[in-house]
Amino acid sequence: MANKTYSMEQTITTLLEEKKYPTLRDILITMNPVDIALLFAELPQEKLPLLFRLLPKEAAAETFVEMDEDSQQLLIQGFSDNELKDVISELYVDDAVDLVEEMPANVVQRILRQADPETRTMINEILKYPEDSAGSIMTTEYVNLRPSMTVDDAIKHIRRNGVDKETINTCYVTDKNRKLIGIISLRTLLINDESEDIQDLMEENVISAQTLDDQENVTKLFKKYDLNALPVVDNENRLVGIITVDDAIDVMQEETTEDMEIMAGMLPSEKPYLRTGIFETWRNRIPWLMLLMISATFTGQIIASFENALATQVALTAYIPMLMDTGGNCGSQASVTVIRGLSLNEINYADTLKVLWKEIRVALLCGVTLAITNFAKLLVFDHIGIMVAAVVCLTMLCTVLCAKIIGCLLPILCKRLGFDPAVMSSPFITTIVDALSLLIYFNIATALLNL
Amino acid sequence: MANKTYSMEQTITTLLEEKKYPTLRDILITMNPVDIALLFAELPQEKLPLLFRLLPKEAAAETFVEMDEDSQQLLIQGFSDNELKDVISELYVDDAVDLVEEMPANVVQRILRQADPETRTMINEILKYPEDSAGSIMTTEYVNLRPSMTVDDAIKHIRRNGVDKETINTCYVTDKNRKLIGIISLRTLLINDESEDIQDLMEENVISAQTLDDQENVTKLFKKYDLNALPVVDNENRLVGIITVDDAIDVMQEETTEDMEIMAGMLPSEKPYLRTGIFETWRNRIPWLMLLMISATFTGQIIASFENALATQVALTAYIPMLMDTGGNCGSQASVTVIRGLSLNEINYADTLKVLWKEIRVALLCGVTLAITNFAKLLVFDHIGIMVAAVVCLTMLCTVLCAKIIGCLLPILCKRLGFDPAVMSSPFITTIVDALSLLIYFNIATALLNL
Repeated sequence: MANKTYSMEQTITTLLEEKKYPTLRDILITMNPVDIALLFAELPQEKLPLLFRLLPKEAAAETFVEMDEDSQQLLIQGFSDNELKDVISELYVDDAVDLVEEMPANVVQRILRQADPETRTMINEILKYPEDSAGSIMTTEYVNLRPSMTVDDAIKHIRRNGVDKETINTCYVTDKNRKLIGIISLRTLLINDESEDIQDLMEENVISAQTLDDQENVTKLFKKYDLNALPVVDNENRLVGIITVDDAIDVMQEETTEDMEIMAGMLPSEKPYLRTGIFETWRNRIPWLMLLMISATFTGQIIASFENALATQVALTAYIPMLMDTGGNCGSQASVTVIRGLSLNEINYADTLKVLWKEIRVALLCGVTLAITNFAKLLVFDHIGIMVAAVVCLTMLCTVLCAKIIGCLLPILCKRLGFDPAVMSSPFITTIVDALSLLIYFNIATALLNL
Repeated sequence: MANKTYSMEQTITTLLEEKKYPTLRDILITMNPVDIALLFAELPQEKLPLLFRLLPKEAAAETFVEMDEDSQQLLIQGFSDNELKDVISELYVDDAVDLVEEMPANVVQRILRQADPETRTMINEILKYPEDSAGSIMTTEYVNLRPSMTVDDAIKHIRRNGVDKETINTCYVTDKNRKLIGIISLRTLLINDESEDIQDLMEENVISAQTLDDQENVTKLFKKYDLNALPVVDNENRLVGIITVDDAIDVMQEETTEDMEIMAGMLPSEKPYLRTGIFETWRNRIPWLMLLMISATFTGQIIASFENALATQVALTAYIPMLMDTGGNCGSQASVTVIRGLSLNEINYADTLKVLWKEIRVALLCGVTLAITNFAKLLVFDHIGIMVAAVVCLTMLCTVLCAKIIGCLLPILCKRLGFDPAVMSSPFITTIVDALSLLIYFNIATALLNL
């Protein structure tokens, strides 16, 4: 798909130069707004306003939503008040909110001035919810029915009011105090008799979120119950908005990216990689690097305190990296597995002992396999003494065991204490396991080799 | 939500002992099938058949789909042929396919025998598509309209046939050769005049997938175009099925888990962690551990070849772990960022130079910050000579630079060669960077300290 879009770049540029606007328009209206936005991103910015004006109103608004901030700002600055009004009136409220959140203050003022009073109220309503809350990602446009309506009433109501609603596949039934009392799908309306009452057909067992719920937990409801939309209520169960599945998918993906960044020892970034400045990237990466560099000091101190032992058995030094790396890798395998399990709700605090017992057995299997392979390799290829080989392999087994235990327990503990378990992954575990493996190594060496 | 479900366990057990079946039934029918399945998983298995028979037919089938394989198999073995037939006739075809794929052969034979001929044909149809293809996750139940129908015809058709369809929010328009020529939403049907023709209202610019497309790419279309369902066509553009957004979300999540497992040096697992046996977990983890342990041999050889230098400057040994760890961490930061960017299509091969240039600048910023901090620490706290400190810090700077360059380039290269870039993450990068950082360290040391 993407490739097709890009190959069109040249055609569009040529047509633009030749001022063949009707042809350009004919091409653009065959395209999906998402692809139009991708195409625009590849063209010189100064052509944007011209191209944009070729689009029909609705397609223009849909394309506008898909564009990046910089292009959006550029377009708005070139818009007349009327053009701005047209685009804003076609936007869904949640998209308008995203726009307002991203634009600089002077642009925001212009946007709010051109929005009609009802939209302005809705935008301000959503803006007051904290970032990452269910309220902040909902839209306030939905189909609202009353329990006493008949199917016929409902369909007429939808025909009159439903055109602008982001999703009308599910309609929401509220009582006179705006409390959410049921939902009914368009499908149910369609397959039932026109004279039936909504209250007899609606599903009363409604899954909903509260405005202040964490957005990550809200997206888990979509996955768990296979939802297409989720109603959002305030703490008195009054319906205030809905979240649609496409927005839930965006949040899922953002949260996954955040998890991966944290797991690699970075602070989560707000923007896509190529659009983040180098100072911002540096700011996201340096704290953990600094912390981990300083904690690696302990590892150095352990080595320093065994300096004399190492001086008499220099061969031991050569196996330090292998032991540390294997330990680190074993630890991250366990921690990543557990972190992902926790995030998918496949593992709970109650499973701690089950997880620990499993990791101990897997660690013994892995440890023994690695130790035996290594022992053979040390004797056959490295020609080192059998006692030194024994020290290395015994250390290997103990390190693997410790690494897996620490790797599986720390994320669970971290979650239990209310922190993000993703912190307890590779970089952190590696630092701890490094120090531990050295301690094990030198203690076993001291004991077995009489250093 | 989950907590509420679990606290009900005791009540249900007590009611079961007291044989209060009507009460149990009353409780169960207020619950969502997903929660019923969660509740059943917490109760003793021998109670399952009894409880399951209390559910109304439709709820029973919906609960059945949500249960784990073992419980499903247990239930099927206890079912009479008629009971089995009832459950299967209520299943959506894609759920029936999942069931058939998971059950042992003798159970599968019983299932296929009880399915009606039409369902059996559809199941076999889907089963023939390769794993991870669009065909394997689609359902063959959808609403099919003709271009010549009027809105009124269409609504009547849906009323007659739409009840069993997994989604009727979007209807698919095909010509007489079953070729997909348009889509139309239920909403469009509802807000337009009854006498209008479908061909005048339908959207002809349809986004579709081919049966053999990779499921991961298919889910990207859902994200890109904000879809609720996606039609699947064969290579002659004939409509064969649809994929619904809930199944796309499941695939997205599986693919993310797979990525994370690969990134932590594991083979992807088929089953959730707690349901995977220890030998399977061992089999998934040992190949990379073994490979990485053996490649760490090079690191050892580097140290061994500088044994004499180390013997004269034992202090140098103490900083090996810190340099290696910092290098590894810097490398994984870059690689994880790039791997994620590649998977979200935020980074393409064409961006290679842009990525490289960015990472070089970030690496210099990070490297200088770390080197200066470290230099101060070495002089103030460790009281080592200024020349040794200079060696350590210069190595730090070079290692960070190399690590970031390798970390960002390898995933892009890997993708370009057609492999999964996730392989080029922490464990792999660490091993390469370890060897590199030691080479840099000893060469700088030899040069500056005249070893």
